[in-house]
Amino acid sequence: MWHNLDGVTSPAVVDLLGALAYGELVAFERIAADATHAPTLEDKISLGKMADAEFRHFEQISTRLTQLGVEPSVAMEPFVDALNAFHNNMEPRDWLEGLLKAYVGDGIAADFYREISIHLDPETATLVNEVLSDVGHAQFAIDHIKSAITEDPKVAGRLALWGRRLMGEMISQASVVAGTRPALQEVFLNPPDGSAPMGATELTSMVNRLTVGHARRMDVIGLAS
Amino acid sequence: MWHNLDGVTSPAVVDLLGALAYGELVAFERIAADATHAPTLEDKISLGKMADAEFRHFEQISTRLTQLGVEPSVAMEPFVDALNAFHNNMEPRDWLEGLLKAYVGDGIAADFYREISIHLDPETATLVNEVLSDVGHAQFAIDHIKSAITEDPKVAGRLALWGRRLMGEMISQASVVAGTRPALQEVFLNPPDGSAPMGATELTSMVNRLTVGHARRMDVIGLAS
Repeated sequence: MWHNLDGVTSPAVVDLLGALAYGELVAFERIAADATHAPTLEDKISLGKMADAEFRHFEQISTRLTQLGVEPSVAMEPFVDALNAFHNNMEPRDWLEGLLKAYVGDGIAADFYREISIHLDPETATLVNEVLSDVGHAQFAIDHIKSAITEDPKVAGRLALWGRRLMGEMISQASVVAGTRPALQEVFLNPPDGSAPMGATELTSMVNRLTVGHARRMDVIGLAS
Repeated sequence: MWHNLDGVTSPAVVDLLGALAYGELVAFERIAADATHAPTLEDKISLGKMADAEFRHFEQISTRLTQLGVEPSVAMEPFVDALNAFHNNMEPRDWLEGLLKAYVGDGIAADFYREISIHLDPETATLVNEVLSDVGHAQFAIDHIKSAITEDPKVAGRLALWGRRLMGEMISQASVVAGTRPALQEVFLNPPDGSAPMGATELTSMVNRLTVGHARRMDVIGLAS
């Protein structure tokens, strides 16, 4: 049974939507910034379309937060520092690092949110799934990175290292966030769908699944994880 | 009478739409970049919405170019260097310079295109007017710059200088473009609507009108032009 059918919005849902909204807003800005470094006009247009899709996802989540009676900027605020720290620490040095960052980052975020959203009310879960749908970025990144490696196999080593750093930094910032948001811990300790609490073992399994997903995505491009 | 009723698209229309399309695409990227420096989350969201509106304008022009049988990237290509040069030479050093640049640049571009579009076929003129409609940026910039000047009157001098440099650089890049695109010169020498050719006097009047428009916009914020 759901805890929130009394009309009180769960603080965990607000936190998850707030983090996701800010993540989409920043993704929009970062992909638009990558577009300025696109090697061709066609690539610039493709990235513009993706950035635009992320912005529309941001707006969908904002609309939902407003429906729930929460000011979107208030819901996003607690996640600004951690997400900004992630992006500032992991500033891509070139076009390929930017592509890999978006591909790897979107992938891990999508896996993580899907793990959590099964414990949320169906409406939130549907929205989360919708806004995490790939906007075409993955295939675009895969194609461009693979052809860059074919042209110059040396870039593979540098990008593999970059992929490992991205995964590490995401886990590190996620831990910071988890430690400061009791409502998010509550999703694991007392899942709103009434399922059994996740203990240390279940959390470890989840991190393992995220790591496997990451390794699979790196593998698709021929990069060691 | 119109020159293009035989179904052959005028090279001038393609040039104008190409320049406008690239201008919107770059405006989108630049406003999204400004959003990363927004002082508050609300400002970040506002700029995101404006960047998104510019992207939709870009898509409208692209659609029109495609309908005319022209690949958008082909139409944009001749204007990439001049527009990139403008943006690279005029990289804002802070949030306020970014806002003034967008306000001043959008204003001059809109005035210029409206001067020209009256000589084009009605369908193109309508589209040009539509995509040049202010996306809310002007009032946003006016409000933020005015309140920054109220807080610290010293910034007015720096921003006034910045506004003059922007106008100068736009005229300089526009001359480069005009010199290399005979089709655009043709709009003035042999307007497609059959009106009288614009000679040196009419061109000087047009530049004067653009300068007056610029001065009026600077005046609205209390800046000397």
